[in-house]
Amino acid sequence: MTVAVIPFKPRNPKTRLSCVLDEQEREAFAEAMLLDVVGAVRDADCQAVILSTELFDSDLVQVTIKDMGLSDATNEYLSCAVTDVLIIMADIPLADRESIKRVTGTKKDMAVVPGRGGGTNVIYVKEPARFHVDYYGGSYLKHMRIAAECGLSCDVIDSFRLHTDIDEKEDLAELLLHGSGKSRAFLEEKGFSLTTENGRVGVERKR
Amino acid sequence: MTVAVIPFKPRNPKTRLSCVLDEQEREAFAEAMLLDVVGAVRDADCQAVILSTELFDSDLVQVTIKDMGLSDATNEYLSCAVTDVLIIMADIPLADRESIKRVTGTKKDMAVVPGRGGGTNVIYVKEPARFHVDYYGGSYLKHMRIAAECGLSCDVIDSFRLHTDIDEKEDLAELLLHGSGKSRAFLEEKGFSLTTENGRVGVERKR
Repeated sequence: MTVAVIPFKPRNPKTRLSCVLDEQEREAFAEAMLLDVVGAVRDADCQAVILSTELFDSDLVQVTIKDMGLSDATNEYLSCAVTDVLIIMADIPLADRESIKRVTGTKKDMAVVPGRGGGTNVIYVKEPARFHVDYYGGSYLKHMRIAAECGLSCDVIDSFRLHTDIDEKEDLAELLLHGSGKSRAFLEEKGFSLTTENGRVGVERKR
Repeated sequence: MTVAVIPFKPRNPKTRLSCVLDEQEREAFAEAMLLDVVGAVRDADCQAVILSTELFDSDLVQVTIKDMGLSDATNEYLSCAVTDVLIIMADIPLADRESIKRVTGTKKDMAVVPGRGGGTNVIYVKEPARFHVDYYGGSYLKHMRIAAECGLSCDVIDSFRLHTDIDEKEDLAELLLHGSGKSRAFLEEKGFSLTTENGRVGVERKR
């Protein structure tokens, strides 16, 4: 069974949403998105493992690696992995069974889904010990280069559901438009709704 | 053969790019993107027809409908169409054969690809006279509603290549990251390149 590793930052996450959500709300929202991603990877027949640098209150299986950044912690995990591994970000709540299956169904050695703005939202590697990650700063191009250097053939999966990371206020519109899980319900509960201004859809918060 | 209708505005297009491109450059850039889309639909075995409200200098097949908005002009075309029709926006230069084939290969009556921010970037209808479009102001949800009202089953195709419309400066990063056609070459020729700031990829123009 494919293990889906989901790096997660439980404390003070998603600071670029501070304009519309306070710290406690951002923590609850980040966890709602995480649960949506966990649900999606399970629907896609993967086993979810949360990779965090501190333990947090949850029933989910957690691997906790202290005092490390996201890349180092993930590489630590990859070097010991015995099955194929899916590394999927916790802030892509539009992820669904079908999009993840397109990733894990690759015929190549690995597959990548770029995030908006040059990041990497999903990586799937059949032989994890042969690959290493390097997040931050245009990681998509870096990962393509690392794959080539490691002699691994690499698919790029074309999915807007996996491409859409929720970082900023305007991204919330995508979640209200295309989401159906806990994170969308959280936003609605907090009074967020879609608005239309100058022909574009945005969001507003009413309470 | 599927006809691919590409609505196009030749004069003073893409005003939200005025901060980095002057009017003449925006017209050239819009035409480069159009040519990329034309190339992609032809690769996907469609016949490209440009739908415009004024004639412009080009060898492409043009249907010109004067004094009408995008929606009315498109509906005028749909009501007379005798084959299945793909309506595809001229500002999605990441479009490629594979993503378009996923749209035209739908088993349902029609298929839609949402654009970023609630727009509609691609519509495919097997029986065009049964459908009508209504662009602007969150058109994705409107088109889903119209499909339901017309009794047409509708697929939503999950593609970031077709989802990514190029409207604003930050969108240019996506084109430099994932594009390979004339519009990417245009940007490079004009001195645009990728930058990395605070871990995110952006663009800068050097000349």
